[in-house]
Amino acid sequence: MEKIGVLGAGSWGTALSIVLADNGHEVRLWGHREQLIKEINETRKNEKYLPGVELPESITGYTHLEETLSDVKTIVLAIPTKALREVLKQVSNIVKEPITIVHVSKGIEPDTLLRISEIIEQEMSDDKLKDVVVLSGPSHAEEVSLRQITTVTSSSKNMDAAKYVQDLFMNQNFRVYTNPDIIGVEIGGALKNIIALCAGITDGLGYGDNAKAALMTRGLAEIARLGSKMGGNPLTFSGLTGIGDLIVTCTSVHSRNWRAGNLLGKGQNLDEVLNNMGMVVEGVRTTKAAYQLAEKYDVQMPITEALYNVLFNGKKAKEVVDSLMARVKTHEMEDLVNIMENRVN
Amino acid sequence: MEKIGVLGAGSWGTALSIVLADNGHEVRLWGHREQLIKEINETRKNEKYLPGVELPESITGYTHLEETLSDVKTIVLAIPTKALREVLKQVSNIVKEPITIVHVSKGIEPDTLLRISEIIEQEMSDDKLKDVVVLSGPSHAEEVSLRQITTVTSSSKNMDAAKYVQDLFMNQNFRVYTNPDIIGVEIGGALKNIIALCAGITDGLGYGDNAKAALMTRGLAEIARLGSKMGGNPLTFSGLTGIGDLIVTCTSVHSRNWRAGNLLGKGQNLDEVLNNMGMVVEGVRTTKAAYQLAEKYDVQMPITEALYNVLFNGKKAKEVVDSLMARVKTHEMEDLVNIMENRVN
Repeated sequence: MEKIGVLGAGSWGTALSIVLADNGHEVRLWGHREQLIKEINETRKNEKYLPGVELPESITGYTHLEETLSDVKTIVLAIPTKALREVLKQVSNIVKEPITIVHVSKGIEPDTLLRISEIIEQEMSDDKLKDVVVLSGPSHAEEVSLRQITTVTSSSKNMDAAKYVQDLFMNQNFRVYTNPDIIGVEIGGALKNIIALCAGITDGLGYGDNAKAALMTRGLAEIARLGSKMGGNPLTFSGLTGIGDLIVTCTSVHSRNWRAGNLLGKGQNLDEVLNNMGMVVEGVRTTKAAYQLAEKYDVQMPITEALYNVLFNGKKAKEVVDSLMARVKTHEMEDLVNIMENRVN
Repeated sequence: MEKIGVLGAGSWGTALSIVLADNGHEVRLWGHREQLIKEINETRKNEKYLPGVELPESITGYTHLEETLSDVKTIVLAIPTKALREVLKQVSNIVKEPITIVHVSKGIEPDTLLRISEIIEQEMSDDKLKDVVVLSGPSHAEEVSLRQITTVTSSSKNMDAAKYVQDLFMNQNFRVYTNPDIIGVEIGGALKNIIALCAGITDGLGYGDNAKAALMTRGLAEIARLGSKMGGNPLTFSGLTGIGDLIVTCTSVHSRNWRAGNLLGKGQNLDEVLNNMGMVVEGVRTTKAAYQLAEKYDVQMPITEALYNVLFNGKKAKEVVDSLMARVKTHEMEDLVNIMENRVN
């Protein structure tokens, strides 16, 4: 049994804390909002993010980062990508010996175009970082907190580290598989939020399930096209962190990226949507990054481009989606063959 | 503009008749139930299968096969796979010159293990058959009949025939792509019904979206594993007739395979379910065929096997699904690498 620091007391950080607590670990759940942490410690609840869920006794809330990290060799990073660098700088200053960082956020940083594991490596001093592991897959926090069966992937450059994290989290309800392809795992997890936003838009506009399935199919193709050009293994995009996560994010009402897209499709603009959500919508930031990546790697990403134009160039959602659906391409294998040309064996 | 015979006046045959009529063709919609055909001709409705939908004037219902086929060079076959051979024998006797047959049913024949295009080739005399084309993809009939945007694939050994069918059906709402891999297209379309039945079962048992996404991911892997061993191109399973059709069938309430599974998950047995549905559930028959194919080609298909045991061996759905979810496999790429070993370049 270990002491684990979980940074980020939103829905995902809290749900993963429950998994770790169920496995007998001592969990220190850190958040910066005093009121939220007080609620966790005094009422065993996190009503804003996981309404109705009782938190096990072995989870303790912290607002003080130094206290949280004392004697901790493994941390789980569950904070919005925007706040990542700032928190990592503090972590790097505080810890005394190299730690393992499990990150569970999904995004790509605009402008630098770095994946989250790369940001972690950049911000942590070499002598403070043992391994970086990403935990990703089709996993709504709400269901995990209710111990509903969930499968995820643990990935790292160092497979021993991936297996260590697999052991930390694995239990009867939470099944963890390993995959050595950290690039593919991170890209799939990040970019599916773009397709979820688009799926929300088509649903909001009143398109049906046939159109949504076509969008998701083409969306996965463009994720795989970019991801394999960036060095990911094309097979990863057919796995839990690719198709699996795409499906759950595009078809479930739990998904906040889908919900944000749905509001866009119903006619709200981006500012209104973000105000109404009151939660971070990672897909918005990732769309910008993916748009830049498509240019950098010279990859066709029509869905990403369409969404970029809606979010940042004031284009009407309906016009953009209609032209997307009417795209002249008559031979469906063209798309797919492109993916495989970049296949890493 | 052409005369097209559409055999089968269920929801899919009727919806495709609407597409053809919208494109200016003269459609002869054949069905064996006098009452239904009378309703179509007198009220312009097919209330049982497409409630509320008005049929264009250029669709005429027929009960007499010989009349239907007179001067017709292209027929669309939209009948349950069980009735296929009998109808084809009649067609082969009636027609005077070689015809193009577009088939839109999804299934594999148990015991013979033939795909539908193979059954067509077997039952039609050589001098009566010009080409066989399969039209498949994520396409609920209800949405097609309402002119909602839909994308499908037209596939044939003869790409000129596939393109001819693409031209027949293509319009602003109904987008048709071509794919030369008829094996992959037929296998994907048939086997996704098995996964849809299973997805219905997990939903009926009360599992969440995380579990369903995992099931669909693994399901696609096993379809691709078998399909590529049978000679299909693995890429096809990442396209509209693979992932696309799988998504729409597993996540939509329109899907009768999902609905049948859902009733099974809620505790009904197979006979009760089939009685309550009152429609053909192709996935039941396909499960038997796929189970036999897995043995023949020596391919692991744990989901198919689990469903087979529920449908035909009286196993409890909950036990089977639980053991499926707990399967010992810790390295997710194993599955995927297996697919690619059988890749057809």
